[in-house]
Formats: sequence, structure tokens, C-alpha cells
Amino acid sequence: MREAFHVQLDRVSDDLVEMTRLVGTAMQKATAALLDADLALAESVIEGDDEIDAQASKVEQDCYQVSALQQPVATDLRIIVAALRISASLERMGDLAVHVAKSARLRYPNAAVPEELRETFTQMGAIAQEVVAKTGTVIATKEVAHAADLARTDEEMDRMHRRLFHAVLDPSWSHGVEAAVDVTLLSRFYERFADHAVTIAKRVVYVVTGEPYATVDPEAAARA
Amino acid sequence: MREAFHVQLDRVSDDLVEMTRLVGTAMQKATAALLDADLALAESVIEGDDEIDAQASKVEQDCYQVSALQQPVATDLRIIVAALRISASLERMGDLAVHVAKSARLRYPNAAVPEELRETFTQMGAIAQEVVAKTGTVIATKEVAHAADLARTDEEMDRMHRRLFHAVLDPSWSHGVEAAVDVTLLSRFYERFADHAVTIAKRVVYVVTGEPYATVDPEAAARA
Repeated sequence: MREAFHVQLDRVSDDLVEMTRLVGTAMQKATAALLDADLALAESVIEGDDEIDAQASKVEQDCYQVSALQQPVATDLRIIVAALRISASLERMGDLAVHVAKSARLRYPNAAVPEELRETFTQMGAIAQEVVAKTGTVIATKEVAHAADLARTDEEMDRMHRRLFHAVLDPSWSHGVEAAVDVTLLSRFYERFADHAVTIAKRVVYVVTGEPYATVDPEAAARA
Repeated sequence: MREAFHVQLDRVSDDLVEMTRLVGTAMQKATAALLDADLALAESVIEGDDEIDAQASKVEQDCYQVSALQQPVATDLRIIVAALRISASLERMGDLAVHVAKSARLRYPNAAVPEELRETFTQMGAIAQEVVAKTGTVIATKEVAHAADLARTDEEMDRMHRRLFHAVLDPSWSHGVEAAVDVTLLSRFYERFADHAVTIAKRVVYVVTGEPYATVDPEAAARA
């Protein structure tokens, strides 16, 4: 009976790893749609979000089923709750990819990102890929060391976010208010995307180590 | 034994209602600090966030204790999971109040909000108060009708958010890029604050009705 329980928990973990893949692909496509002003690609990200939401619902239902199968002891309950929260964070990361895609769609056939910031967003997109890949590794391996690695990657994202603010607020900014508003929000979407990944890693660490989850504000570093 | 369990669950519910009060006060002060460029008030919101985080940790610990006290059946588990998620949303609402306060602090002794947008942010602050009060009512009463009411209030917030975009992107905007970036992010903080409240109400509805939680993007309306 307990074995069946743990087999089901492993399945939930696999489903969460699959969600990181879906979310990573969504953000990769959204970034490409943004940089290339590719409307069809942007639409595909927006439509594809249903699949991520469906996967989140599946995890949610599986978690309730697995707990009905056998009344969970305290440790198991922590794992189930962590899985539900991780699923919610991944769903939210999917939403952020959709926001990036919608920004690309809104400005089509123009590019939402001025030429001089292409490199910044290319890098933010690359960091987002790194972040989501590491999130998958943390969930799959449950190794605490990977979480620290992920936090360092998040710091890179924060640095890009600050760099973008400097560019927008520099007197040499020549792209006007609309572009400033667009890239400010876009940069925040990428920054929040990475923050959610760090939150997920912390939840995994909590389950593994049993240490209370530290209530930190992951944005503090980005805005310091 | 089951009675003790439910007494403890009621206590968790009371703690969540108390969190809505703390979060509401934080956003009220942050709005005042923003509109009056009041540095001391802004600092008090930033420092006060520890209390909200501590309350969230207390709810979290209580939830694990209550489930250790008695192995929860499926319905109870849903309630516990909902409480943990509601606590996380409220903590995040507290963070958003801190972001507003930090924006006020960053521009001090100047005001982060141009005179012509004071009225907009005054209204957003008032709607935020309404939203958080209704969130407390939904948690306390568990009445589904209040959730629908809250969704309508959130729509008002979305309207204000769109209005702000129009003001910033209008050719008559005369406050430059920095103010545009500031008010765009500020407006988003208020909008997300209300979104979290709607998410909380949906979680309560899910627990009460047992209907699967619809995975919707509460920002869709705001950006449509």
C-alpha cells in the first residue's frame, strides 16, 4: 500500500518535470517571437498555455487522489503540498511566457524591443532557459546543491533587469515612453519567471531538509 | 478528536483573516506614503512586512501541526492545502505593498506619481482596500456570493490599470520616461494585488463547492 503511494508520488514528480519542459519551451518560443516579431509563434505560445494549465490540473487531481489512496503521514503531506505549490508556480511561469508573447503580438508588425536592447533580451531569454532547466533538475534529483546553483543564475537575471532600467532611464534613451513601458514590463516578466524558479527550488529544499521555508522576498535583490 | 481538529482549523481561518487586515493596512499606508511622499510611512511599511511574513509562517506551521494531530481525510486536506496557498497569496500581497512603499522611498523627497495621476492612484488605493476587506469576508464567511462580488471589484482595478496605460501612452504625457516607468510598475503592483485576492476567493470557492479550481489567467481581462 505504501509502495503504491510512493509510486504515485513519483509520477507527480515526473509530471512536474514535464511541466518545466512545457514552460521552458513556451518561454523560448515567446522570446523568439519577441525578438523576431513573429506573430504566428506568439499565437502558438498563447494557445499552448492551455496545455500547461491542463497539466497543472492533472497534478492537482493526482495529488488529491494520492492522498485519498492512503492517508498521508506528516512528511508525505509536506511533499503533496509542495507539489501543489510547485505546480502553481510553474503554471504562473507559463502565464509569464504568455505575457511576453502578447507583448510581441501587440506591437506586431513592429518589434516591441528596440534594436539596442535585443542583446539584453536575448540574454534574458537564455537565462530563463537555464533557470527552467535547473528547476527540472532540482525537482527530478531533489539535490539541495542544485538549488544554490539556481539562485546564482537568478542573480544573473536580476543583473540584466537592473541593466535594462539603466538603459531606459539613461538620458540617451531615444525610443520614447511606449517602448520604455514595454521593455520595463517585459523585463519584469523575465525577472518574475526566474523568481518563481527560485521559489520552487526552496520548496524542494524544504521537503528534503525539513527546514522551515524561509519567507524571503526574491525581488529584494533585483530592486536593491 | 475530530472536534479539536476543527477548532484548530478555525484558528487557521482566523489567522488568515488577521493576515488580510495586516496586508490591508500595509497597502493603505503604502498608498498614503506614495501620494504624500512620506518617507517615514514608507519605511514603516517596509519594516512591517516581517510581521506579515511571520504570520504566514505561523499559518504554515499550524497547518502542518493540525494535520499531524489527526490524519486528515480528503476534504480536510483540501482545506489545509487551500489555507497554505491563501497564506502564500496574502504574503505576496504584502510584498506588493512593500514594492509601492519602496517606489515612494526611491523618489523621495519627490513624489513618484505626477499630480495628474494622483486621483488614479487614490482610487487604486481605495479599490485595494475594498478588495482586501472582501477577501477577509470571503475567508471568514466562506460564502460563495462574496467571491463574485470580489471579482467585480477586481474588474474596477483592471479598468484603472488600463486608464493609466492610456494616460502614459497619450501624446500629451509630459513627465518623461522615468515617471512613465514608475507609474507603469506601480499600477501593475495594484493590479496584481487585486488578482491575488481573486485567486484567494477562488480557492475558498473550490473548498466550499468542491468544484475543480478553474485555471484562469486573472490578468487576461486587464490586458485584453
